[in-house]
Amino acid sequence: MSVPKNQIAITVEDYLKQASLRVNAALERHLPSETEAPADLHRAVRYSTFAGGKRLRPALAMASFEACHGIGDSVLLAACALEMTHTFSLIHDDLPSMDNDDFRRGRPTNHKVFGEAIAILAGDSLLVYAFELLAKSGRPECIATLARALGTKGMLGGQVVDIQSEGKKVGLETVNYIHNHKTAALIEASLVMGAQLAGADEEVIAGLGAFGNRIGLAFQIVDDVLDLEQTTEALGKDAGSDLAKGKATYPAVVGIAASKDMARQLIDEAKLELRKLPIQGGTLELIADYIITRVH
Amino acid sequence: MSVPKNQIAITVEDYLKQASLRVNAALERHLPSETEAPADLHRAVRYSTFAGGKRLRPALAMASFEACHGIGDSVLLAACALEMTHTFSLIHDDLPSMDNDDFRRGRPTNHKVFGEAIAILAGDSLLVYAFELLAKSGRPECIATLARALGTKGMLGGQVVDIQSEGKKVGLETVNYIHNHKTAALIEASLVMGAQLAGADEEVIAGLGAFGNRIGLAFQIVDDVLDLEQTTEALGKDAGSDLAKGKATYPAVVGIAASKDMARQLIDEAKLELRKLPIQGGTLELIADYIITRVH
Repeated sequence: MSVPKNQIAITVEDYLKQASLRVNAALERHLPSETEAPADLHRAVRYSTFAGGKRLRPALAMASFEACHGIGDSVLLAACALEMTHTFSLIHDDLPSMDNDDFRRGRPTNHKVFGEAIAILAGDSLLVYAFELLAKSGRPECIATLARALGTKGMLGGQVVDIQSEGKKVGLETVNYIHNHKTAALIEASLVMGAQLAGADEEVIAGLGAFGNRIGLAFQIVDDVLDLEQTTEALGKDAGSDLAKGKATYPAVVGIAASKDMARQLIDEAKLELRKLPIQGGTLELIADYIITRVH
Repeated sequence: MSVPKNQIAITVEDYLKQASLRVNAALERHLPSETEAPADLHRAVRYSTFAGGKRLRPALAMASFEACHGIGDSVLLAACALEMTHTFSLIHDDLPSMDNDDFRRGRPTNHKVFGEAIAILAGDSLLVYAFELLAKSGRPECIATLARALGTKGMLGGQVVDIQSEGKKVGLETVNYIHNHKTAALIEASLVMGAQLAGADEEVIAGLGAFGNRIGLAFQIVDDVLDLEQTTEALGKDAGSDLAKGKATYPAVVGIAASKDMARQLIDEAKLELRKLPIQGGTLELIADYIITRVH
């Protein structure tokens, strides 16, 4: 990609790294310290928030905001809220009554360290903080977007069907439902919220949502494939655990080769959606390519 | 209380009953039906939402809104959000890893009927719905009020200390901390949100918050006393269960007589706060009296 004279070329890895540093600094400012009461709860909240996540959702919100010529720091509120709600979902998903996972990102899961009660409350706390932060943006439509993405017809609905499908033989329709709701909805919301905070018009917001939905689904398919192809060390969690648990995944339903084709096709569709829009989508396109080529 | 010619006199019981009917109708409209997918999740959400709660928090928000001459239906959004978050807290508090309660309001608790995973997700869903609804009010300050009341320095913080204090000998300071955070914070928020939605000025909002804090604390003290003095049948849950679990309560720390005195004093203080304000506080005063005289 050629770079206009007034712009600086950076790699997508550098962009993601910089976005991650910015959101980490903002999370650090917005979350209570470990010494504030109740200390155990704040320790648990911080343990999972600062566990080395990729900060993909915050980076997408920022890139969407920038693509729509957003000005100022308001997108950091959305970036933090997205990462907080993502972390909330991981903590609750890992619980004994859900996926019962002992490791996440190479470390013991929240409930293994702090116990189940504190883990549930730490997840609840992150969800509440996300909305408290977003309220500071003064943009109720942005709060509505996040809530819809998380609700019973979004992420939480996907989690229910995921749990209920474990160990059962399910078809592509069910896997699509689970991944669209459990993963793609929040990634789609990341793009939409960035555009809303930039004051983009409805057409651009809808187009970025469509882009987000496709890269979100592709992201989850790649995740399913990596779970089968990568080592436990590279993943930071047990490789092949989806298979062992009888999880509803794309590779389980259509096989690895078809899954990879599907992910590639979704990324192509996403880029087509993006190119229709009157915005500077270069960074978003690079992140879409990164999603399909990443190895962990 | 004398009634001006242009007003209608109703008892506090009738007021609470009417408020309850209004909020129930609004909750019915705002929550997905049991037939919508994922049906199990929506059934679990509705099971605990429509379990015969008193709807005290919604009634307080409405009475606060009316006292501040609020116009329109926006307070119903806050009323529903308050009841949803209250229900969320009850579902999570009852979980095996928390209070491990089998009964609530005379019926099996959510996790006993739907299993632990769905119960956790139903609680999460109600929390998310509350913020989605409040976003419709277009009042970010109202969202911030609710989030602060629920967060780690509000209800969730109180719940952590409550769990950690179980079976331990604690002093009045700890019981104050638990009840102020776990119960009074959300009741205080009910009053504040009603006033915010009515467009009241800062002084009135602060005064109603002070009123709410005191009646909230009194409400919890009365609850602690009722747990000891009432039958299981009247309470709809095991009487004496606080004592059996070694819960940190006012009667356990200062005795029943001193607890009753303290509740009475808090209600008197609350009324003094209320009378300072340039609002029509008649209904709120009656609710304050109801809190201290209720028997279940």
